[in-house]
Amino acid sequence: MTTDPTRVIPGFSAVVPAGGAGTRLWPLSRAGAPKFLHDLTGAGRTLLQSTWDRLVPLTGPDRLLVVTGTAHADAVRRQLPDLAPGSLLLEPTPRDSMAAIGLAAAVLGRRDPGAVMGSFHADHVIAGQEQFDDAVRQAVVAAREGWLVTIGIEPTNPATGFGYIRSGTGLGLDGASSAQRVASFVEKPDAATATAYLSEGGYRWNAGFFITRADVLLDLLAEHHPDLRDGLVEIATAWDGPDRDAVLAATWPGLERIAIDHAVAEPAAAAGRVAVVPGSFSWDDVGDWDSLAALLPVPSHGPAVVGGLEADGTVVAPDSTGVVVPASGRAVAVVGLEDVVVVDTPDAVLVTTRARAQQVKSVVDALRAAGRTDLL
Amino acid sequence: MTTDPTRVIPGFSAVVPAGGAGTRLWPLSRAGAPKFLHDLTGAGRTLLQSTWDRLVPLTGPDRLLVVTGTAHADAVRRQLPDLAPGSLLLEPTPRDSMAAIGLAAAVLGRRDPGAVMGSFHADHVIAGQEQFDDAVRQAVVAAREGWLVTIGIEPTNPATGFGYIRSGTGLGLDGASSAQRVASFVEKPDAATATAYLSEGGYRWNAGFFITRADVLLDLLAEHHPDLRDGLVEIATAWDGPDRDAVLAATWPGLERIAIDHAVAEPAAAAGRVAVVPGSFSWDDVGDWDSLAALLPVPSHGPAVVGGLEADGTVVAPDSTGVVVPASGRAVAVVGLEDVVVVDTPDAVLVTTRARAQQVKSVVDALRAAGRTDLL
Repeated sequence: MTTDPTRVIPGFSAVVPAGGAGTRLWPLSRAGAPKFLHDLTGAGRTLLQSTWDRLVPLTGPDRLLVVTGTAHADAVRRQLPDLAPGSLLLEPTPRDSMAAIGLAAAVLGRRDPGAVMGSFHADHVIAGQEQFDDAVRQAVVAAREGWLVTIGIEPTNPATGFGYIRSGTGLGLDGASSAQRVASFVEKPDAATATAYLSEGGYRWNAGFFITRADVLLDLLAEHHPDLRDGLVEIATAWDGPDRDAVLAATWPGLERIAIDHAVAEPAAAAGRVAVVPGSFSWDDVGDWDSLAALLPVPSHGPAVVGGLEADGTVVAPDSTGVVVPASGRAVAVVGLEDVVVVDTPDAVLVTTRARAQQVKSVVDALRAAGRTDLL
Repeated sequence: MTTDPTRVIPGFSAVVPAGGAGTRLWPLSRAGAPKFLHDLTGAGRTLLQSTWDRLVPLTGPDRLLVVTGTAHADAVRRQLPDLAPGSLLLEPTPRDSMAAIGLAAAVLGRRDPGAVMGSFHADHVIAGQEQFDDAVRQAVVAAREGWLVTIGIEPTNPATGFGYIRSGTGLGLDGASSAQRVASFVEKPDAATATAYLSEGGYRWNAGFFITRADVLLDLLAEHHPDLRDGLVEIATAWDGPDRDAVLAATWPGLERIAIDHAVAEPAAAAGRVAVVPGSFSWDDVGDWDSLAALLPVPSHGPAVVGGLEADGTVVAPDSTGVVVPASGRAVAVVGLEDVVVVDTPDAVLVTTRARAQQVKSVVDALRAAGRTDLL
């Protein structure tokens, strides 16, 4: 992959935490092959690869880090052949997002003391590269000034599945004209509250992206979770030397498990240190099959088919709507079901409706209870 | 298998035409492995084997003939290891039920001029062996007197998927006290007509069983379709000799394709030569997945599962009802669907509702149009 040098943001690194089981996207997403490793939309690239494609023009290939579990190391290397060897940070066990992103911050900060980093999930779907670039560019400007910066997505509907960011006054920064103070983060609202947010204005979806100087993030962490900060710095100090594995083994398992939102973003927002840059690109975290169905183009008739394999008889679906994911090569026939979800994989098939998509998690729980770990 | 000699009906042979694609039971039923070769109900025996189990006590193993296509010869022999070698009549190509049953009549008539035969489909589901035995026994008595005898099933609901038999006066035969004249055969009625039949009384479901002397059947055929009768007799004359294949090859392809109902049963009924014995056993032709669902015991919660594999996690189906056929060993998860039908096979999965079960045929048509003959 060649990178247009005029698009690279100097001194900017991207961190991609690639984790999470994606349980509600079972049976495609599995513990051994989670959501980010799959081409959910039939784009021809997995979500991880699309994340790479979106970020690498802004960082160049040497400043894009992926943080993932050791179990996924081979798959990530296979999917991202241009990932620099030193850019794959492997977690021995999952310790939630603060440890993952904090480790990257500590490693980056040692390699490049003035580094600005942005963390972007490996399993979100985004359209509108130009708008994305613009938002990240403005966020980097604000981050250089010491802000912890997030990106707030312009809501297109009163979604109840996302947290919201309420914005305050503008920062008045050159090169970051739309950056604003964050008044507060708000949890996933109910439908009435979400509707009120949209009519009131000033609320945006929290995509969970954070752009910040590595030292600022570590300082915030030192303030709120000093033990976690110390552990991460200890690991990072050894990271590029011969003692990495020994220090990791000794220190990693004792790190606090906490999400970056609770660990630093919320307390920093309360202290007036968080900014938001509005993003006008389209974004979705594709949390479940219903979300995926909403993302796919609606065919003139029949359900959306991921991969578009209708013509060869792989999917036959008279009088049906919804989404069919033919991921095993077997034929899938659906007759007379509205808003159905059919996901066909080599060892399991799921049938549900878009309205019941959230409940897929209960299937995974039931399989675990039945001892079918082979299917998780 | 041992046979209780006291139950054998002397001089009685059973003929089991094993044909038909069972298209509406796709994807389990295929051209290469039709309905009768499958254990649809999870009984542990295929429909063909259950038919054997039901009939062989009445005939003994040497007087039970199966008529099937050459493509199914091996499967039938495998499923019925006690079938006598001379009792498997193979049709080079399908020529409908009159040719199949007429061939058996002609072969039987040559081997045993006074033979009484009963033809019973290979793919129906019946419960109530004692009542079945009693009906067949009475039918044989009437058949010996020269009647073409059918069995009329006591209707349990105003079904629109079956033809009906309207009965007339009793025959007054010793040993066949409930045998009556058939006033007429009536085609599958609409719902209102079926309801009227039930309240009026005297109407029974036509199970398509015929019990008759072989010579009577051939005489009826000579009367209404003499060319077909002559062709069948020509083949039967050569059947047990060295010229069977040559005569079959020369004669079979030219035989008229017609169902036994239209060929002889309806004209014979019009001539007052058909009798009906009421059958109080339960009977279903399992024409589609909805019929199968109705036959299976209703579980206290969840859909009926053919084979009952729920406990091991093969089927997980919260908040769902209907029927699941896990015929591939893969896991099947269904969430929040009422009256759903999910049939999972190694190369195809079907999802529909009981109400749309008739439309499964359209899937098979679409697959054929798409050139997916591998799935038919």
